[in-house]
Amino acid sequence: MIKVAVVGYGNIGNYVIDALLEAPDFEIAGVVRRNSNDIPDKIKKFRVTNDLSQLDADVAILCTPTRKVEEYALQALALGMNTVDSFDIHTGIVNLRRSLDKKARECGKVSVISAGWDPGSDSIVRTLLQACAPKGVTYTNFGPGMSMGHTVAVKAIEGVKAALSMTIPLGTGIHRRMVYVELEEGYDINEVSQKIKSDPYFANDETHIIKVDNVDNVKDMGHGVNMVRKGVSGTTQNQRFEFNMSINNPALTAQILVGAARASMRQQPGAYTMIEIPVIDLLPGSREELIAHLV
Amino acid sequence: MIKVAVVGYGNIGNYVIDALLEAPDFEIAGVVRRNSNDIPDKIKKFRVTNDLSQLDADVAILCTPTRKVEEYALQALALGMNTVDSFDIHTGIVNLRRSLDKKARECGKVSVISAGWDPGSDSIVRTLLQACAPKGVTYTNFGPGMSMGHTVAVKAIEGVKAALSMTIPLGTGIHRRMVYVELEEGYDINEVSQKIKSDPYFANDETHIIKVDNVDNVKDMGHGVNMVRKGVSGTTQNQRFEFNMSINNPALTAQILVGAARASMRQQPGAYTMIEIPVIDLLPGSREELIAHLV
Repeated sequence: MIKVAVVGYGNIGNYVIDALLEAPDFEIAGVVRRNSNDIPDKIKKFRVTNDLSQLDADVAILCTPTRKVEEYALQALALGMNTVDSFDIHTGIVNLRRSLDKKARECGKVSVISAGWDPGSDSIVRTLLQACAPKGVTYTNFGPGMSMGHTVAVKAIEGVKAALSMTIPLGTGIHRRMVYVELEEGYDINEVSQKIKSDPYFANDETHIIKVDNVDNVKDMGHGVNMVRKGVSGTTQNQRFEFNMSINNPALTAQILVGAARASMRQQPGAYTMIEIPVIDLLPGSREELIAHLV
Repeated sequence: MIKVAVVGYGNIGNYVIDALLEAPDFEIAGVVRRNSNDIPDKIKKFRVTNDLSQLDADVAILCTPTRKVEEYALQALALGMNTVDSFDIHTGIVNLRRSLDKKARECGKVSVISAGWDPGSDSIVRTLLQACAPKGVTYTNFGPGMSMGHTVAVKAIEGVKAALSMTIPLGTGIHRRMVYVELEEGYDINEVSQKIKSDPYFANDETHIIKVDNVDNVKDMGHGVNMVRKGVSGTTQNQRFEFNMSINNPALTAQILVGAARASMRQQPGAYTMIEIPVIDLLPGSREELIAHLV
């Protein structure tokens, strides 16, 4: 059994625990919360601590906000644990990989980074389609659905009590952001809107901010992807590929984190993105049986 | 530059040469044909031989009939070349992998087996979807399109002058085979039909055999796939995934063989199916640049 520490018990942490309990090869060593005295019912049966070093784990699944991933990952590696995260700022991935690769090699451990669905499982499909038709364009169309990363970014803005950022696909990789905001008393929606629009998460997309009385009433964690590529294999034009998903967002992210935690046990020391890991390593069970069923 | 021997110059071999000439990192060491005196115009500029040992190559791309793959692969490995093939009899993959794994390790070389689109790129998607939603069913629906493997199997039957086997998707992974046959003089369509229907390629599917005067008039090398999975991530039901392709069959097979040949240079000695290889290894170029663009 692989011993795992769940770092952070928000939305993703909650679903990670579901996925771990369904998996045949994991044991939960404990849960890390900043306030370890506040223990929700669901995790009462596990050890809950605010100090990762108190846990004896092979791998730490980081369910923290994306901007805290590097700090927690460096700490976990130093403690002799592998790490997996779903870091989702595409432009920051190469730097995070460099930083964790150095530390992971020093510690003889493995980090699997950006292991959600995009970046993550979508990245594997994108890379595969590039290999199938090297010339051409891939469009990744997201939604309609709630973006976790964008929602967290809005929530971090002063005056925002609750928020929901919906991603609306406009085709050819162009998206609209519909942001539903519940304000703290005394804050102005126009000022908050300016801050949202200037955040790097939103700066490049058409963004609409809508003030609502209760964000909870518009919340749906379903999401989707439509990825299309038309390209050239050799000299043969017009090869067409399409990948579609309609999924519960945190549930899929959590499931992939758990697969990546398993895969971390099978790699040489260093940091890896999902496209650098054989997909078979995400699954439990005998290699020959998996090959017989899946190849 | 990776030096490559193209073994066999039929349909696949022809498209493999196209893909190699478009790739930035390959050099064609030569082409192996049984009759090396019969040299089509397209390959006149390359060394053509009937003896693989005459070529100085890092990797041999086997474009032979599937049932000849093991024999040629063992020979190429013994000569110190990596091998890639598109062996497509699903039930024979585990045994082929065992046989080539043993030989590849002995020779310090790499074999990538079953590197077409199914088995091959589809296998990667199937494995990934299994990781995304571990409980559930994946249906792979093929076609409508010409099946190379099935067509070659029909052609091998005595009395068949030319043939085309079309795969028709009936949904939930069930297929009809429409086989168009041009007979040699003096053969009976009923006898040939019996032989086709008892071949392992056809034994499990609804198969219709139609005698035609000219197979060439019904030939179209387009093909397609529709793969669907509905499953459970953690404890969250109803996660839906779909992968579609509409492609020229030998062109895609050839492109994947070329990617697999590249990947063979980056693996430890042994035999691998596509699901055991990181997808990034299929692509040329700098690792960090690929990660920045694709993850």
